[in-house]
Amino acid sequence: MDTNLTPKYIAHLREEFNDALMSLQLPEQPSYLYKPMSYVFSGKGKRLRPILLYITGKAMGASEDDLKYASIAVELLHNFTLVHDDIMDQDDFRHGKHTIHKKWDESTAILSGDGLYVLSLSFVAKVKTHSLKVIKTFNEAALMVCEGQAYDKQYENDRHISIDDYFIMVEKKTGNLIGLCTELGGILGNQSHKNIKDLKTFGMILGTVFQIQDDILEIMANEESMGKSLGSDITKGKQTILSILARKKDEKEWDILNSNIKEIDSTIRRQKEFFISNGIIVEAQRMIQSYINQANEILNIFPEPCKSQLTQFTELVLNRNH
Amino acid sequence: MDTNLTPKYIAHLREEFNDALMSLQLPEQPSYLYKPMSYVFSGKGKRLRPILLYITGKAMGASEDDLKYASIAVELLHNFTLVHDDIMDQDDFRHGKHTIHKKWDESTAILSGDGLYVLSLSFVAKVKTHSLKVIKTFNEAALMVCEGQAYDKQYENDRHISIDDYFIMVEKKTGNLIGLCTELGGILGNQSHKNIKDLKTFGMILGTVFQIQDDILEIMANEESMGKSLGSDITKGKQTILSILARKKDEKEWDILNSNIKEIDSTIRRQKEFFISNGIIVEAQRMIQSYINQANEILNIFPEPCKSQLTQFTELVLNRNH
Repeated sequence: MDTNLTPKYIAHLREEFNDALMSLQLPEQPSYLYKPMSYVFSGKGKRLRPILLYITGKAMGASEDDLKYASIAVELLHNFTLVHDDIMDQDDFRHGKHTIHKKWDESTAILSGDGLYVLSLSFVAKVKTHSLKVIKTFNEAALMVCEGQAYDKQYENDRHISIDDYFIMVEKKTGNLIGLCTELGGILGNQSHKNIKDLKTFGMILGTVFQIQDDILEIMANEESMGKSLGSDITKGKQTILSILARKKDEKEWDILNSNIKEIDSTIRRQKEFFISNGIIVEAQRMIQSYINQANEILNIFPEPCKSQLTQFTELVLNRNH
Repeated sequence: MDTNLTPKYIAHLREEFNDALMSLQLPEQPSYLYKPMSYVFSGKGKRLRPILLYITGKAMGASEDDLKYASIAVELLHNFTLVHDDIMDQDDFRHGKHTIHKKWDESTAILSGDGLYVLSLSFVAKVKTHSLKVIKTFNEAALMVCEGQAYDKQYENDRHISIDDYFIMVEKKTGNLIGLCTELGGILGNQSHKNIKDLKTFGMILGTVFQIQDDILEIMANEESMGKSLGSDITKGKQTILSILARKKDEKEWDILNSNIKEIDSTIRRQKEFFISNGIIVEAQRMIQSYINQANEILNIFPEPCKSQLTQFTELVLNRNH
């Protein structure tokens, strides 16, 4: 088997998952439920989670059908969380398109989010290998993701949140869903209990890296590449890796800098300057590198093509610009 | 086995389910998620759904543990739908208490609703008899309930909704969840495919009756016994059995009567008069009786104590005043 995870292969898998989502053949009625659900599938998601689950399981020799069902399920679960989180965070854009609550209204977004989750469960239930274990693993991860989002909301505007609190939140909110992908890949690939645990840990670390990166991109990237308006973390008083490190570095200066967050453009500009001149970005990137080292350490025990492919997937995540 | 479903036994089961819900021992943190979830359990629900599932399965000799897990699961599923529906319908009271979005806010209500659903799935996954079938049945019912709620929202202020449309909505929205209770009772009680189907149909009919009754109580009962403010159906432009029959009876008169729905008290009073003087209540009650006859017909084929207990349960539902 080719151990190389070429950009062409990734693009091919993304296309496959996009096709699968577009051809789910949801009923026409009630359109109140199914139209916004279809709208979600038409978005240009990166499909990183199903790709990760698929390549992990494939490298372990899992069944093609099981991998496809489980991959679609995690992507639907992910989209359910996006739809509901976007309401809670009042984010109006996602992947360059209006979010459901913006395009329709909040009731439509609540219900179609629910529908996406129920649909995800119907895909999990199609898996034939270790069915009950897969279902329980999926449920547990979903609860952790809810807990993570709860911490995210609970922490808003809370000046006492520490780096440790942040990592608890991120591990639950972002880590668990990506950890679920590698964990399910391992379960479907009939791996040992220890290997499944290691794969899960690898995914959770990757998810944590992903979130730290997201925090950086949210302020340092440009709106076009992100497909959404930036600065939303600031106006919502979100705790990000950068804001926590900044507060720790120089609380007084940081407070002055944020004294008028209604002027969002100048606040973004001043925050950027603060992060760069105080070495905050470098510090966050050092954290990312430390996590990546831990992740690679875990991968060392896995045979090829798993090791190479997951290493390459990690690089893919690291090099993203949105 | 005693075939009698005494009020004392019903009260005992309700107490058991209340205790089970109160002792779920949810984690303390994140309080943003678990505090409102616990608040939901402290409400004075009638617990009709878990009681129905339990007595159905018990009459068929199902395992005590399985019945308890499945019963808690349907009650959690039901509460998830209430929390989200209350946001969508902007209903501020439930069982005499503030709804979550009113007591906290919409984000809290969205997330704790999600949490209730995820929790319900963890209970379904504990069931040991026909596990996968139970899980799939549960998922299918949840999707139908979403569809029903979608129709309910889609139909708001739509003057073209017919009686047939109404029954499609009600069957999905209310019928499916009650049908799920009798269906799961049958599955856990190792019944034949035909018996399970009949039990499901019986539950769906009972659910339809329940909804017609609810439509009547919503306008004819008093606020205290209902534990919520009345007239919400009117202000939201909901299609109820009474409004559809009234429009069919005398569209012009009905329109005049509803020309100023902002004056809710006088609109309720005038609607009541219209319903009574035009025989609309009698017609709706005739429909209920016709459904009850169908339900009893189905029960005829079931042995004791199933037949007697479900007949008595039907009477319990019929005689409720809230």
